[in-house]
Amino acid sequence: MTSSSMAPMPLMPHQQKSRTQTKLGNFNHGMLVVFDDPMTKDNHLLSPQMAGAQGFYFYDMKNAYSAWFSYTLIFNSTKHKGTINIMGADLMDEETRDFSVFGGTGDFFMTRGIVTIRTDITQGAYYF
Amino acid sequence: MTSSSMAPMPLMPHQQKSRTQTKLGNFNHGMLVVFDDPMTKDNHLLSPQMAGAQGFYFYDMKNAYSAWFSYTLIFNSTKHKGTINIMGADLMDEETRDFSVFGGTGDFFMTRGIVTIRTDITQGAYYF
Amino acid sequence: MTSSSMAPMPLMPHQQKSRTQTKLGNFNHGMLVVFDDPMTKDNHLLSPQMAGAQGFYFYDMKNAYSAWFSYTLIFNSTKHKGTINIMGADLMDEETRDFSVFGGTGDFFMTRGIVTIRTDITQGAYYF
Repeated sequence: MTSSSMAPMPLMPHQQKSRTQTKLGNFNHGMLVVFDDPMTKDNHLLSPQMAGAQGFYFYDMKNAYSAWFSYTLIFNSTKHKGTINIMGADLMDEETRDFSVFGGTGDFFMTRGIVTIRTDITQGAYYF
Repeated sequence: MTSSSMAPMPLMPHQQKSRTQTKLGNFNHGMLVVFDDPMTKDNHLLSPQMAGAQGFYFYDMKNAYSAWFSYTLIFNSTKHKGTINIMGADLMDEETRDFSVFGGTGDFFMTRGIVTIRTDITQGAYYF
Repeated sequence: MTSSSMAPMPLMPHQQKSRTQTKLGNFNHGMLVVFDDPMTKDNHLLSPQMAGAQGFYFYDMKNAYSAWFSYTLIFNSTKHKGTINIMGADLMDEETRDFSVFGGTGDFFMTRGIVTIRTDITQGAYYF
């Protein structure tokens, strides 16, 4: 896997800020979010769910928005059954960002590679 | 390593809920626990400690119990010296679950593989 | 990479304790710190920054100081562009400690290996 065609959905009600950010700067430094999000093949929220993405991220820069992710893609369908483990820095200013795929189980036993993500849309935090 | 014969002990006084869960659902969504647990060859709490398991987990589902682990097995004995790094989703409803082994140091230099875990017993949270 | 010549800097104003430790013992058990630190070739704070280290650590022992790290080295210069992902237990009593390098992107695509760290100086927590 050198590129993912699955688009991460925007922040969802499944997500919840589970630790408050620090007072360092204006970019949520230290805020940690645990998430459990649906993954779909296209960018439509109501499309069939291909997998779940479970894990966490936190913001880690004082002077800009930047985050760090670690999560697992969980497949549990007739087509795929297994997990893919992913981790990396999300340099939010870049057009695309790469995470490391460092392991997997089931159908994805010992998977390695890179996941490339791209932001579809950014919605204000007031949304949640 | 495709299977671990070492049974993780139940929640211990070494563990402590170190961040409170969110209000999302009734399954501790967002609760993060840092742990430092003994590992033994059998399931007896008073057996000799083979290794330590240090790391963290958090609950990440709104509708059911599910967790996500990342930790290190630390061996420091005459028999084994080194670490094994482990991470993955803990789908608590499954009979067995697989984590990725993505690295190690010392005697376990560059270890890769899978750890399979199984729950021995679940004790209510009121215990702690 | 079997050894890193880049010295991690001491705790910096970039860092901030972003979750309070538990009351278990006197060694900050459960305290989680999100950091965004400069990396330099020598041990001088004012040297040119070679990379950034973004990630988190937490203390995980009740009876002694011990920590667990997961972070990304981010290179973004004319010389190197890409990331290196690192994770492992920091047995703070040891002269040197080894973390796993389990992946990378860009110039460091699919990097694997070990990072060895050494403490230069420990400053009291009252500093921050």
